[in-house]
Amino acid sequence: MGGDHAPEEIVKGAVRAVREHGVRLVLVGRLPELASLLSKEGARGEIPVVHAEDALAMHEGALASWRRPRSSVAVACRLIRRGDASALVSAGSTGGVVATSTVRLRPQPSVLRPALAVALPTRPVPTVLLDAGANADAKPEMLVQFAHLGAAYAHTAHGVAEPRVAMLTIGSEPGKGNKLARKTAELLSATSAGPTGQSWLDFRGNIEGHDLLSGEVDVVVTDGFTGNVALKSVEGAVRFAFDTVREALGSTAVSRAGTLLQRKSLRGLRDRFDSETYGGAVLLGLNGTAVIAHGDSRAQGIERACLLAHELAAGRIVDQVRRRIGPSARSAGRLHRKAGNEGQGSG
Amino acid sequence: MGGDHAPEEIVKGAVRAVREHGVRLVLVGRLPELASLLSKEGARGEIPVVHAEDALAMHEGALASWRRPRSSVAVACRLIRRGDASALVSAGSTGGVVATSTVRLRPQPSVLRPALAVALPTRPVPTVLLDAGANADAKPEMLVQFAHLGAAYAHTAHGVAEPRVAMLTIGSEPGKGNKLARKTAELLSATSAGPTGQSWLDFRGNIEGHDLLSGEVDVVVTDGFTGNVALKSVEGAVRFAFDTVREALGSTAVSRAGTLLQRKSLRGLRDRFDSETYGGAVLLGLNGTAVIAHGDSRAQGIERACLLAHELAAGRIVDQVRRRIGPSARSAGRLHRKAGNEGQGSG
Repeated sequence: MGGDHAPEEIVKGAVRAVREHGVRLVLVGRLPELASLLSKEGARGEIPVVHAEDALAMHEGALASWRRPRSSVAVACRLIRRGDASALVSAGSTGGVVATSTVRLRPQPSVLRPALAVALPTRPVPTVLLDAGANADAKPEMLVQFAHLGAAYAHTAHGVAEPRVAMLTIGSEPGKGNKLARKTAELLSATSAGPTGQSWLDFRGNIEGHDLLSGEVDVVVTDGFTGNVALKSVEGAVRFAFDTVREALGSTAVSRAGTLLQRKSLRGLRDRFDSETYGGAVLLGLNGTAVIAHGDSRAQGIERACLLAHELAAGRIVDQVRRRIGPSARSAGRLHRKAGNEGQGSG
Repeated sequence: MGGDHAPEEIVKGAVRAVREHGVRLVLVGRLPELASLLSKEGARGEIPVVHAEDALAMHEGALASWRRPRSSVAVACRLIRRGDASALVSAGSTGGVVATSTVRLRPQPSVLRPALAVALPTRPVPTVLLDAGANADAKPEMLVQFAHLGAAYAHTAHGVAEPRVAMLTIGSEPGKGNKLARKTAELLSATSAGPTGQSWLDFRGNIEGHDLLSGEVDVVVTDGFTGNVALKSVEGAVRFAFDTVREALGSTAVSRAGTLLQRKSLRGLRDRFDSETYGGAVLLGLNGTAVIAHGDSRAQGIERACLLAHELAAGRIVDQVRRRIGPSARSAGRLHRKAGNEGQGSG
């Protein structure tokens, strides 16, 4: 029920995900409305609906969401807790979905905090940036766990066998950055050095803001404040650059003629940056996965988000996270055993 | 003597600044080399040279720079201390120039920390972003001072009478962000509320990363870690977008034909983003101003940096900062008196 175009576009996107990708899903929300929209799509019998009488409003923050046990997101969480679903998709407010999911799904054992991960449009493989905003104030031990969450994501969704991990900071030399970044880099270096009681990680050191889109690593770790600022700075700058190009290309009669010829090339380009094509942010580290699509998502964006949720669930990302940072994490190949109570002091 | 193309391009840029903009300047560096380069430009008698036998290496960080009292930057600082110059320009390593200038020029009275400011290419007026990297770990009281430093910059270099100031954070509502941002926003709100013992500021609240290039405010305040990440994320994203455009425009024979027609439009565009056109980062809050040009600056970049240093010196930015945050800051028009020892506890 969340998002600017809910529930019409959500239902359309869900129907597409079922028909075109074979995703198995349940719609959660106001039954009469959803039933009638499904009928319109000729999909009344194809997709089950679970009734939820309430919905989070787009402006509602973390606190309000706790007080709505019957919101569609809360009911979806209940389905996951009961084992009737593995992941949820919502286009509701990020704050509301993060808070509701965290409270109702709870962090996995030994996971200090869930983190919000986004896939940046790098080539040939997307780069996972996390935390993109779930934890504005973080501790080094959390960031080390985020690295594992991101590695599990890159492995599951992007098929990277041993994800290369870097930390976002200022100055690429060791020892650069603020206190949090310096301490985190120290801890991450230890995870890649060999058996230290930590699960193994292919930590490649520090990267700076201008390398976020270079595709040199598979996972970029940072705190939620820096990550959110960086992500939005990238989005704003890309939009600014395209606007500037469009303006420049239209600025003379001669170049306008050229622009007509290029309409098709530019359309391919715009699609690549279109938020609809990325599937959304993923909240990792809970007992179940939440995919948060852009609030302005239409059917295509919802279809992609459902597909992403399906891939993460099919790849058993929750189990992977438990193997990496859960209390029973054990050495398996290059994954070394780590202490079950690691980092608890900072929770 | 600093920069990838020193001293040839530095000398060329300096000569242009003198001849085309009437900037009065002194070259500091190895005398024989500089004299011979000036002769090549036919400018031997036009620009005085002060000898400095040493130079900071590009890779040298903060510590090494202290041990080089005869580097060209150190000698330039001495000229400022003696009153023989008002500002210095260097294309040397940012870390080295920041450290040397801070140690040798010293912060102005009551200024807790100098900050590095950059002008983002917004329209119609550039937006000043600071701190862009001088202080990786900052305190709220420092950020309030950065707001004043940035306002003095916007006023002096961009002619903005009452600069609009915003704070970079996540979520535009009050109360969003990490601890540092929340506390800073509280303090900044107090400065715009009226006579509170602080100099007045037109504080417009919070902005997010995607608004950095919207031109909605004249000054954006943040800590040096977040600011550096944001700045580099923007630079990297703009480069990425242009590369993608170039690739797309060249991808078919038809669009290649179009591209020829547009070569001129795109060149104008590239220039707008070219670092050469911005003059460089400015270290504010010291007893004298340091303009740090990009390390890869050529003559044009150095010319612009000299012009920026000239404008800041002619506008008496050091006096303006003293009036805003110095111990003798007094009410003048909407500038209210502030306590002389404000924020000292955090130094």
